[in-house]
Amino acid sequence: METGERKIRLGMVGGGVDAFIGAVHRIAARMDGDYELVAGALSSDAIRAAESGRLVGLSPDRTYSDFADMARAEAARDDGVEAVTIVTPNHLHYAVSKAFLEQGIHVICDKPLTATMADAIALRDVARASGAKSLLTHNYTGYPMAREARRLVAGGALGNIRLVQMEYAQDWMAYADPTNKQAAWRLDPAQSGAGGAIGDIGTHAYNLGLFISGLTGEALSADLQCFGGHSTLDDNAHMMMRFQGGARGTLWCSQIALGNENRLNIRVFGDKGGLEFDQENPNQLWFTQKGQPRQLLTRGGQTFQGDVRIPSGHPEGFIEAFATLYHDFAGVIRGDDTKADLLPGIDAGMAGMEFITAAVQSNAKGGVWVDL
Amino acid sequence: METGERKIRLGMVGGGVDAFIGAVHRIAARMDGDYELVAGALSSDAIRAAESGRLVGLSPDRTYSDFADMARAEAARDDGVEAVTIVTPNHLHYAVSKAFLEQGIHVICDKPLTATMADAIALRDVARASGAKSLLTHNYTGYPMAREARRLVAGGALGNIRLVQMEYAQDWMAYADPTNKQAAWRLDPAQSGAGGAIGDIGTHAYNLGLFISGLTGEALSADLQCFGGHSTLDDNAHMMMRFQGGARGTLWCSQIALGNENRLNIRVFGDKGGLEFDQENPNQLWFTQKGQPRQLLTRGGQTFQGDVRIPSGHPEGFIEAFATLYHDFAGVIRGDDTKADLLPGIDAGMAGMEFITAAVQSNAKGGVWVDL
Amino acid sequence: METGERKIRLGMVGGGVDAFIGAVHRIAARMDGDYELVAGALSSDAIRAAESGRLVGLSPDRTYSDFADMARAEAARDDGVEAVTIVTPNHLHYAVSKAFLEQGIHVICDKPLTATMADAIALRDVARASGAKSLLTHNYTGYPMAREARRLVAGGALGNIRLVQMEYAQDWMAYADPTNKQAAWRLDPAQSGAGGAIGDIGTHAYNLGLFISGLTGEALSADLQCFGGHSTLDDNAHMMMRFQGGARGTLWCSQIALGNENRLNIRVFGDKGGLEFDQENPNQLWFTQKGQPRQLLTRGGQTFQGDVRIPSGHPEGFIEAFATLYHDFAGVIRGDDTKADLLPGIDAGMAGMEFITAAVQSNAKGGVWVDL
Amino acid sequence: METGERKIRLGMVGGGVDAFIGAVHRIAARMDGDYELVAGALSSDAIRAAESGRLVGLSPDRTYSDFADMARAEAARDDGVEAVTIVTPNHLHYAVSKAFLEQGIHVICDKPLTATMADAIALRDVARASGAKSLLTHNYTGYPMAREARRLVAGGALGNIRLVQMEYAQDWMAYADPTNKQAAWRLDPAQSGAGGAIGDIGTHAYNLGLFISGLTGEALSADLQCFGGHSTLDDNAHMMMRFQGGARGTLWCSQIALGNENRLNIRVFGDKGGLEFDQENPNQLWFTQKGQPRQLLTRGGQTFQGDVRIPSGHPEGFIEAFATLYHDFAGVIRGDDTKADLLPGIDAGMAGMEFITAAVQSNAKGGVWVDL
Repeated sequence: METGERKIRLGMVGGGVDAFIGAVHRIAARMDGDYELVAGALSSDAIRAAESGRLVGLSPDRTYSDFADMARAEAARDDGVEAVTIVTPNHLHYAVSKAFLEQGIHVICDKPLTATMADAIALRDVARASGAKSLLTHNYTGYPMAREARRLVAGGALGNIRLVQMEYAQDWMAYADPTNKQAAWRLDPAQSGAGGAIGDIGTHAYNLGLFISGLTGEALSADLQCFGGHSTLDDNAHMMMRFQGGARGTLWCSQIALGNENRLNIRVFGDKGGLEFDQENPNQLWFTQKGQPRQLLTRGGQTFQGDVRIPSGHPEGFIEAFATLYHDFAGVIRGDDTKADLLPGIDAGMAGMEFITAAVQSNAKGGVWVDL
Repeated sequence: METGERKIRLGMVGGGVDAFIGAVHRIAARMDGDYELVAGALSSDAIRAAESGRLVGLSPDRTYSDFADMARAEAARDDGVEAVTIVTPNHLHYAVSKAFLEQGIHVICDKPLTATMADAIALRDVARASGAKSLLTHNYTGYPMAREARRLVAGGALGNIRLVQMEYAQDWMAYADPTNKQAAWRLDPAQSGAGGAIGDIGTHAYNLGLFISGLTGEALSADLQCFGGHSTLDDNAHMMMRFQGGARGTLWCSQIALGNENRLNIRVFGDKGGLEFDQENPNQLWFTQKGQPRQLLTRGGQTFQGDVRIPSGHPEGFIEAFATLYHDFAGVIRGDDTKADLLPGIDAGMAGMEFITAAVQSNAKGGVWVDL
Repeated sequence: METGERKIRLGMVGGGVDAFIGAVHRIAARMDGDYELVAGALSSDAIRAAESGRLVGLSPDRTYSDFADMARAEAARDDGVEAVTIVTPNHLHYAVSKAFLEQGIHVICDKPLTATMADAIALRDVARASGAKSLLTHNYTGYPMAREARRLVAGGALGNIRLVQMEYAQDWMAYADPTNKQAAWRLDPAQSGAGGAIGDIGTHAYNLGLFISGLTGEALSADLQCFGGHSTLDDNAHMMMRFQGGARGTLWCSQIALGNENRLNIRVFGDKGGLEFDQENPNQLWFTQKGQPRQLLTRGGQTFQGDVRIPSGHPEGFIEAFATLYHDFAGVIRGDDTKADLLPGIDAGMAGMEFITAAVQSNAKGGVWVDL
Repeated sequence: METGERKIRLGMVGGGVDAFIGAVHRIAARMDGDYELVAGALSSDAIRAAESGRLVGLSPDRTYSDFADMARAEAARDDGVEAVTIVTPNHLHYAVSKAFLEQGIHVICDKPLTATMADAIALRDVARASGAKSLLTHNYTGYPMAREARRLVAGGALGNIRLVQMEYAQDWMAYADPTNKQAAWRLDPAQSGAGGAIGDIGTHAYNLGLFISGLTGEALSADLQCFGGHSTLDDNAHMMMRFQGGARGTLWCSQIALGNENRLNIRVFGDKGGLEFDQENPNQLWFTQKGQPRQLLTRGGQTFQGDVRIPSGHPEGFIEAFATLYHDFAGVIRGDDTKADLLPGIDAGMAGMEFITAAVQSNAKGGVWVDL
């Protein structure tokens, strides 16, 4: 996916170094070489903002603690950011998006769009008035097999869609300390909005269900619960759904379903076939055509038509294992030997050569045992 | 894994833009922000080298077509490369590694170490004489769960190791056009070395078996076959193995086992337990302690002790789906709308907000159907 | 499970030789040697009843075409049936059960209990007045791992139950010819009752959900659909459920979900753990205790406490493969050689002996190749 | 599979009531109604023989403690056994088979054929001289999907066979008390023969490999080990195999591979496709045709052509769950209420009817919550 194009100058709001999702966005932005992170308001606390900026390699003069200052200052620079990533708690999405869009800076924002419906409508108007793009990281739509599923449905492989079954089951809230930062803002309606699990993960399931099925929602019937008792917000929700055109479905999202780490699962059935995508096994897609055995389609496999960085059988994750070696090699190169025993070098290379040599010899001699 | 440290200046030999493994190395080097690619001899063909350099963003004055020139020129610069990645066919590993090591430049080389045993021994001597590091990308050892498996074995969870069963099954050679570049050098003993499948993938299985088990090989008995008939080199191999200390094992590697994409699988059994790692499902590890039910350990899960970029349940690959969105967003930002219909924006955000609002309303009204 | 006790004399109503479920009941009754089938009204058509009786080995004088005649006649015999199995369409369950219960004959009836609620209430009164037992073949509760799941929940391993997710997905109705006998009575409200899929399979899912969780249903909210258009009865249904004590759940049953053969799946979550049972993999049970990795419990495995016919690892089905050999051997013994090429005999035995001998020899000679 | 034919009179040698495999044979013989067990020498100990005979329902005058006596006595009766099942330790297979075959009684014997090669050859001659059949319970060939695999290979779906990978991994010997009866005879070369694991389970894997692939063995190279130290016999073995016509393979059998219950797995690869059968998931078969995605074929599924007792999705084991209910119902009918709380009756039936009624009502009223 390398393009040879100039890197886009990127800023970030939120995502201080102890926030997992900020780091994910930075890695994602680096991976294909499309962006250069040049500015950030990584925390509203000045000391944390400075420290975080330093750790992610920002220059001090482009490390801000106030997003509004950052929007103005960057817009005024010739080499100011062209796009900004927003990874704050939900209630700030509106104000931050507005600040940058009004400066003509493209916005890449975590979902949900805003914390309230009123903010969402207002933001839509801001976005329409701005020349800049407003983009949302419904990241699960980036999986090659989620896109392949959408392609199959759109191409008619499932016929008329009848059912969309959506699930997103986690259990981390069953372990959560409500005073923990990650849990705290999600449990607070003032920061999170009206939805608990439905906002945090239900929207992902709904978005992915629509993305794959190509359908539009029509109505729902819901039963929300809060089992944990830490908040008034739901930590489990059941819904029955109706889609335009007559399809039906259910949506279950939970953050207290013990034994589920991040089980986002979408099943779609039509009158000609069915499919199932599960994000914990993102390299595959179950696909059934009426009258045929089930097929296990794979990313990059025989019938795949999407884009990939790496061939079939090398799962998404292959590239991260590679990156981990590079990261650990960087440690060695910089003189840090703490991981040296984990890292392959000349000795591992010699062992491999001895292996090849012995195998060829043993085979040539009729399968006798040859020492390594 | 962000460190705030200065980026290491990296060069690359081989890996022109149509070589998949070169791109994998570049992405891996970028992911954690540890390296900056500043020079390369991406092809020995001057025109291809220049074009490839341009596409990966190298400056023309640091784009070389001869690796020896590159080693000399970079060593002479104040801002010359500190490390070089070698992703050439096997027969060049020795000469390229030697050229850079002799200049004191760290080497990160694809496996196998060299094409011949003689070259391997010579390179070991060069490496010993050099102050620079010699590192090998046995990339499968970078998987968090492969490392977790090694940790469990080293900590005694399996007791005394009795068995190591190693498999690496692919089928791509059953589809290969022997005149295709990827296939051609692998089929040519002059470029590939004495081993076919055993060198290309058998060494990976052997390396990972040793890495996880902590054992050292002692002897083997081999039966090599060439079913495809494109070459004298093996495309399938069976081996029985003996390890120091009395453990035994088998190794099967194949490039013609139809239905297997990249099935690298390691099973280790001791007198107190057993485990299984499969690289096509790299987020998990089957682990049995004698007298207990099998456990499915997960990357980042309840008992995990390694390093991760992202929490449990977000598979390796999650971050790539994220990166794909960022890459496609970059296209939109640069004015390319070809993927716009795949990308979530304000409309997807509004749909999500409507979903949350309707769910809360339906629940509040006793589960009535509410329009979306 | 052999007891040495005298066999119970069993009759059957319904279950003529082309009805799959009748044969299943007969095999099940034979398996542990507890019953002897001695009488039957296998069809209301006299010719089919006689032919079916002959094929299942009934004596002509105990082959009936009218169930009421059978109930009277058998009750009058000293060696009359002690129990009767009812495998008719649903609308006959009430009348047949009543006829036998009133004669003091135990009833083993397929679910649902009756076709209408009124019949159910009436039958309950009949059963109370009768000294005979009224037993229902909610057969999925007979799986060892379904019982193990119930045992774990009852023992508190999951803590307070919060969620019960029930699914039963099939696709056979998407293939059904509505004029086919199996489909026809299910599509006819007069024979099937008010429920389509909800009666045919939804009741199984609900029953198994209650069986495993130990809960009692409190209320539900339902959305029924009929996608196939062959009937006014539902072929797909979504429900949200509330249980006494505060637990919640969903139930999805479908007979048109392409790619699902008979996916009955129950997931139960409490505040201390979770479990999942899937009847298509009935030898296993996923079990999570809070703070521990997921465990894959197996029938007969390390922590299993139920009854089994065969040890762990020999799946349910092992015994049927054995029975198939015995059945095919019976053919050979009776002189039918059509399956002879499938059946192991002296030649297979000799091959096995040669294998053992060669293996011992090769090993003794240091692993040389030894001819078979 | 009911035929309406007269039942074959069956005897049994070995298989006293605490021997698991004897009970499996008896259930298998009963399942399709083809046999009636009428005589047995279930133990060589007279008291155990009598007690075992009583428990399996034999008449005392046909309960023997000496197999030779039994063979003579049964041959002399008009209603004597037509066939005998032999489930003794291996070293008795020869003498018992001979005794019955010489009386013209068909023999159904557990594998291996005999304990020694000399016995095997002698038995072959006896069998040839006898008019009776000699049948071997290589029971894994009775699985519908093992037969389907054989059918696919025979029909050319895999092209020319290149590879047969055979595994049979257990762990029970790692738990075995060597003084336990099941372990003791297997550990004793005098009773078991020259092979330990290779005889007990290796022969099954080899037999099933040949059965599915249709190949004939040519040569092998073996490495046997005894890790447990309880015996001189192997408890783990590795082999490389050559088949007539050029195919190759490996065979691994182990009884000390912790975490494996009974993992008999056969993979076959040809130049047009590949397949995998695993007996722990006997209802399915992975099948790949060159150039197509992997298919998961199922017993009774869309392309299946074999015989089944029950439809697809109802796994082998469904029928056993059914039988368990019947067995427990028999307890209730006989007055034993110890399992009554596990068994569905009127109450479960009423709950099901309430479920159907509530679902129909809720749906009719627009999805309101309806009490159960």
